[in-house]
Amino acid sequence: MVSNSDLLYLLMSRKPWHSLPQPFYTEPDVYRADLRNIWQQDWIFAAPSAEFPKTGSYITLEIGEASVIVVRGADRVIRAFHNSCRHRGSRICAAHKGTAPKLVCPYHQWTYDLDGKLLWAREMGTDFDPSAHGLGLVHCREIAGMVYICLADQAPATDMLEAQAARYLGPHDVANLKVAHQSSIIEQANWKLVLENNRECYHCSGSHPSLCVTFPDDPNLVGADDSTTSNMGRAHVDRCEAAGLPAKYLIDPSERWRFVRIPFLGKGVSYTLDGKAAVSKRVGNVPFDNAGTCLFFHYPNTWNHFLSDHVLTFRVLPIGPQQTQVTTTWLVHKDAEEGRDYDLKRLTEVWTATNDEDRRIVEENQRGINSPAYLPGPYSKVQEGGVNQFVDWYCRAMHTALMGAARIAAE
Amino acid sequence: MVSNSDLLYLLMSRKPWHSLPQPFYTEPDVYRADLRNIWQQDWIFAAPSAEFPKTGSYITLEIGEASVIVVRGADRVIRAFHNSCRHRGSRICAAHKGTAPKLVCPYHQWTYDLDGKLLWAREMGTDFDPSAHGLGLVHCREIAGMVYICLADQAPATDMLEAQAARYLGPHDVANLKVAHQSSIIEQANWKLVLENNRECYHCSGSHPSLCVTFPDDPNLVGADDSTTSNMGRAHVDRCEAAGLPAKYLIDPSERWRFVRIPFLGKGVSYTLDGKAAVSKRVGNVPFDNAGTCLFFHYPNTWNHFLSDHVLTFRVLPIGPQQTQVTTTWLVHKDAEEGRDYDLKRLTEVWTATNDEDRRIVEENQRGINSPAYLPGPYSKVQEGGVNQFVDWYCRAMHTALMGAARIAAE
Amino acid sequence: MVSNSDLLYLLMSRKPWHSLPQPFYTEPDVYRADLRNIWQQDWIFAAPSAEFPKTGSYITLEIGEASVIVVRGADRVIRAFHNSCRHRGSRICAAHKGTAPKLVCPYHQWTYDLDGKLLWAREMGTDFDPSAHGLGLVHCREIAGMVYICLADQAPATDMLEAQAARYLGPHDVANLKVAHQSSIIEQANWKLVLENNRECYHCSGSHPSLCVTFPDDPNLVGADDSTTSNMGRAHVDRCEAAGLPAKYLIDPSERWRFVRIPFLGKGVSYTLDGKAAVSKRVGNVPFDNAGTCLFFHYPNTWNHFLSDHVLTFRVLPIGPQQTQVTTTWLVHKDAEEGRDYDLKRLTEVWTATNDEDRRIVEENQRGINSPAYLPGPYSKVQEGGVNQFVDWYCRAMHTALMGAARIAAE
Ligand code: FES
Ligand code: FES
Ligand code: FES
Ligand SMILES: [Fe+3]
Ligand SMILES: [Fe+3]
Ligand SMILES: [Fe+3]
Repeated sequence: MVSNSDLLYLLMSRKPWHSLPQPFYTEPDVYRADLRNIWQQDWIFAAPSAEFPKTGSYITLEIGEASVIVVRGADRVIRAFHNSCRHRGSRICAAHKGTAPKLVCPYHQWTYDLDGKLLWAREMGTDFDPSAHGLGLVHCREIAGMVYICLADQAPATDMLEAQAARYLGPHDVANLKVAHQSSIIEQANWKLVLENNRECYHCSGSHPSLCVTFPDDPNLVGADDSTTSNMGRAHVDRCEAAGLPAKYLIDPSERWRFVRIPFLGKGVSYTLDGKAAVSKRVGNVPFDNAGTCLFFHYPNTWNHFLSDHVLTFRVLPIGPQQTQVTTTWLVHKDAEEGRDYDLKRLTEVWTATNDEDRRIVEENQRGINSPAYLPGPYSKVQEGGVNQFVDWYCRAMHTALMGAARIAAE
Repeated sequence: MVSNSDLLYLLMSRKPWHSLPQPFYTEPDVYRADLRNIWQQDWIFAAPSAEFPKTGSYITLEIGEASVIVVRGADRVIRAFHNSCRHRGSRICAAHKGTAPKLVCPYHQWTYDLDGKLLWAREMGTDFDPSAHGLGLVHCREIAGMVYICLADQAPATDMLEAQAARYLGPHDVANLKVAHQSSIIEQANWKLVLENNRECYHCSGSHPSLCVTFPDDPNLVGADDSTTSNMGRAHVDRCEAAGLPAKYLIDPSERWRFVRIPFLGKGVSYTLDGKAAVSKRVGNVPFDNAGTCLFFHYPNTWNHFLSDHVLTFRVLPIGPQQTQVTTTWLVHKDAEEGRDYDLKRLTEVWTATNDEDRRIVEENQRGINSPAYLPGPYSKVQEGGVNQFVDWYCRAMHTALMGAARIAAE
Repeated sequence: MVSNSDLLYLLMSRKPWHSLPQPFYTEPDVYRADLRNIWQQDWIFAAPSAEFPKTGSYITLEIGEASVIVVRGADRVIRAFHNSCRHRGSRICAAHKGTAPKLVCPYHQWTYDLDGKLLWAREMGTDFDPSAHGLGLVHCREIAGMVYICLADQAPATDMLEAQAARYLGPHDVANLKVAHQSSIIEQANWKLVLENNRECYHCSGSHPSLCVTFPDDPNLVGADDSTTSNMGRAHVDRCEAAGLPAKYLIDPSERWRFVRIPFLGKGVSYTLDGKAAVSKRVGNVPFDNAGTCLFFHYPNTWNHFLSDHVLTFRVLPIGPQQTQVTTTWLVHKDAEEGRDYDLKRLTEVWTATNDEDRRIVEENQRGINSPAYLPGPYSKVQEGGVNQFVDWYCRAMHTALMGAARIAAE
């Protein structure tokens, strides 16, 4: 069992601009510390609002062993609850998604309203107080058409994020899109390796032939630092901003989330094999086809692409120390019709292939790290600044949480 | 690793009439404590005697990692042995059941008599003493046609149980029935959740449509307390007892086992979809068809139904912290002939469906309890007295064992 | 967690000429100690040289979690490296075998020469030193056509082994054979049970009908002690030695390895169902067909058979506490042609069956040992001297390693 002080010591042993020491990627104890200090504290992306088209639309998701129901109420508000009955603890919803007028436990039919209140419990006797047995509430917030949940008692503030998400994502009108497709894959790797892989395109040319048709792997395309930003990137940003489409690289002081709008290669406007749009109907009020893609990540569990013709959300959830779920959702204009306005294969083939390619390299990464011979290696200053930024964020977040725990223990 | 004092502390944290704290259902350490303090101490139901029709008939069963052979000897006595060769430890019998004139180890053919004595060991040299290398004996007792084993050094007394089993079960002449069918299913849940589920019918109306055709889910049908027993129940008991068929609710002072004979609904006489008998030949000397069902449980691992036309035994065995085997055996008169006296599908369909329904709800119960958000919830005083009685028994048994261990450690 | 002093205590509790106490066969902690003290210290047989026919021929193997690449360089030298990239740790080779001009990491294409040097790493910046990022070297030595690796910092000496291997195996010219067939099976058992099973033929008559056609199970056929060696064995040894073919029983003082050349039964010359040769071309310069089989074991992971018409190597690798891989390779003269000089089925059928028979008995051995009722039992002084010799070696090796660790800790 790794104690908090062992963990702090491990954290301090990390070399700057190097991958993490082995236990961070392999050990069940570190995984449990990740759940406790990160996944049960931070805002977690659950689903685009489009997954809740009507009253009673729900999804379930698992964060480690915690199962959560997210459901739209009769008042149109989306709420989240622990998926564990207040009677004897049964899971209430077993399906990944569905629609239900009430939340009814399959065991003894205790019936909860969509706001979590216990409406009905058969034969519990006269001294039973239903109001004390509502579903456990999980923080839930809808931000620019994206639903976030937080398992902590006190959820961190989101005002900055909400303000910037409104600016960057507002033009894509995410809340009014519809789900065209969704895929869920399991990667046999620690969640941090999945994130690291996402935060660099050093591997793209070697692994992602179809993605590289339109996606530029230049790390200086549009950066935080204007002086190193490429001409192509600067021109794109200027053109977008002039049209009222926020595009500049913007990162939160905590470095937990970031927005940036980058151009596609050449005449490309979408993730397709010919670079042309995948959907004939533009989303929201994006002013032109060649708006590139607005990249938005929010640690620990999501990255996203907002294009002119569709939107892609990615949700990462930890299943075990070396097992992670990645769910990709393709969103299109809600009036777009399959067959007429888009072809599903054409819309999804680039990222379906890319996800599978990433799965394979991430799994090999994990296997190699499992070797006792693994040594933390150097990140490329040219290509892997994003990976380093993620790992720095992770180390800071863990450090803060562990110091907080130490302070509480000392009081 | 949970120490005994941690376990005692956990036990003390249980709220009366509430489900157990999470670790009791989830933790490998508690599971190991259950094996040590309950499963390796108490009498465990192994099989109906009918599974041993002749000399050399044997079954094997696993209690956690312990594998046991139960076999009928040439003297007709049924005995039990550890299924581990005294040479280099190989399992001796790999099959779940079979017939063998001797117990021969597959590795080097050491050959044991059906009474466990080592008969033959090739080339072991002159100073080898075969009599010191017999199979490890496991206590074994046949009680009213039911075979029990006990892994403890000293087995608890069974006189009370034997006397009452003879009274209640004697009329069903269980030792002279034959096995018509047997099923074994694996439930992904802690064994205590399997037992809890059995000890209430609060879930029946919502989950068991075919069982509910004839099985009454009224918790007060026939209770320990005459004042709350229903009229229907009292009439049934009186009619049975008048005919010499013991029926009254009878629970051992230890609350480890209980007998009670309850009526079926309406004109029902068996677990069938039309309520009519499944087997045309009555078992033993049960005086009439509408004798209802004599319910007999014996903790930690069995519940049973004794009807006028057949007998059902249920055996629960722990495989892991969240994995349990449930074996159901359908017994009929030994002269009953399939096709003529009973139709196998008709005989087995109600409980085959019911077992599967129970498996599903018990597995959802486990999944919900695995959530860090699980909170022990209140048992219904109306419907879940039996669950509470089981959990109380479990807590007492653990408490006694842990205090005993503490006393020994202190000496 | 078992500490080193607990392990020493466990070791001391072993009764002479008895199988080991349960934890040695079952406990993850003992398994990890085995990896640390034996598998990561000793020479491990990797493959016959024939598996590396040309420059760039490689295999990968896993020793616990350690993945190793063995590859032939442009200078014909065979080397071994840790299969973990010095960038971010990815496994470099995923295949079990193949040919590669360079070792290219699949993640970001860092490219290593066949001697492990980092040749190329894209965009790592100017202060990056490629020479400090070569692949981790693993000791590798080719001994009489057999490739061994060693994960330790300092590899044990091999001069004695090399000298004797040249004498005993030289006549079979192993380096110039070719692979006719290879099989890899997984046995659900601790690696020590796989070795124990190999070190006795007490089980042969009961389990190996096809092997017993030609393989003699007499433990005194040719032993260390001339006074007990059989006449048949002595005649064979004398005839071989007279023809310049070393045959006498020879064991290293450490008892880690041993050579002995034994006769086949009757007129048998090979492992076939009719006893006749499986391959028409004799290997190396073995002087006659009826040379029997030269048995060579090297702890902890190999036993081998050198016949006049073919050679069989066996490689054992631990996968987990109760999981072991056994790889068998059939080698024939490099000019022997399938269909003309040998029939593949005829060549391989005896040991394919034998391996599967051994797998089954070893797995039953493990299952029985898992029982809490398992007791270490006596080895037969007549039949199981080899098992006892292996277990004695293991206990000495562990004892030495644990005492060494204690000395270092005390300094
Ligand atoms: S556990 Fe949900 S109603 Fe009983
Ligand atoms: S292990 Fe049973 S005879 Fe050897
Ligand atoms: S991990 Fe091998 S090149 Fe990056
Ligand atoms: Fe990628
Ligand atoms: Fe039920
Ligand atoms: Fe064998």
